[in-house]
Amino acid sequence: MNIKDHIASIIDFPKKGIIFRDVTPILKDPACMKEVTDAFAKFIKKTGAQMVIAPEARGFFFGLPAALSCDIGFAPVRKPGKLPRKTITQSYDLEYGTDRLEIHEDAIQPGTKVVIIDDLLATGGTMEAIVKMVEHLQGEVVGIGFVIELDDLKGRDKFKDIPILALTHYQGE
Amino acid sequence: MNIKDHIASIIDFPKKGIIFRDVTPILKDPACMKEVTDAFAKFIKKTGAQMVIAPEARGFFFGLPAALSCDIGFAPVRKPGKLPRKTITQSYDLEYGTDRLEIHEDAIQPGTKVVIIDDLLATGGTMEAIVKMVEHLQGEVVGIGFVIELDDLKGRDKFKDIPILALTHYQGE
Repeated sequence: MNIKDHIASIIDFPKKGIIFRDVTPILKDPACMKEVTDAFAKFIKKTGAQMVIAPEARGFFFGLPAALSCDIGFAPVRKPGKLPRKTITQSYDLEYGTDRLEIHEDAIQPGTKVVIIDDLLATGGTMEAIVKMVEHLQGEVVGIGFVIELDDLKGRDKFKDIPILALTHYQGE
Repeated sequence: MNIKDHIASIIDFPKKGIIFRDVTPILKDPACMKEVTDAFAKFIKKTGAQMVIAPEARGFFFGLPAALSCDIGFAPVRKPGKLPRKTITQSYDLEYGTDRLEIHEDAIQPGTKVVIIDDLLATGGTMEAIVKMVEHLQGEVVGIGFVIELDDLKGRDKFKDIPILALTHYQGE
């Protein structure tokens, strides 16, 4: 199965000049969803990870089924104000301005090996913020996985010491 | 396993007088997550559903693994502006003001039997809006499932003709 056949490309969304890569057709086809989940699960097992984390909301689509398939735990990374217990916060740069992400402080125990999953690797700013949060909680990032990598944005250069799995590759526009 | 042992109750979140029921400890424990997923999957199979839908973001935690376990498709219901292709929109009332939800117009084919999953049933306003969207797309809602039902808010009275599964029960505060 070609996973790319289940990724829709939408011109000028959310704004002119951007091609949005839409993963919802993957979710609609259980055979494709299983293939994606199996690929992440194989990667996670190889890293020896003890848990998976993923950012809202599209990261949840792929991180949680993969964690469940590996019989390990999952913790969500969320926008500010969504997680009700004690959190740590990490800022990251957007094209204009900054945004923040949070994780529960007790989500990761010190020494835990963690894989981070998201739908798309562009410049890597979001993933870099999540890696920092894991390290702040004294976890160890043993792998990061994406459904889509926009190769020419060179986001992977931010993670030279971390194994990376990307299931499909596009040129970023 | 008692699923309630994996639901944290946070007093005065997000505001004074509210007890927030936090499902993230379920995600952290793969055995509990499997039990929840299996319970939803059993319910979905019994309804004869052909697909599952769930609203962002906590609905994704439970709806997608259950769909995958049943080998059927999943479609996300999202806040406005998140879905890139042609959508339909449904407004619903909040305590103060209104909010909107969207689903891709091609997410549900006419005649499709659909189960809707969310983390929590309170007054049922969100779920009512999602049911309306399914019906607008000429799908048939054959079941709705929740991890938590706040019994005394009587949300289930809005869905008298639809089978409901609630895995745990609390008094709403």
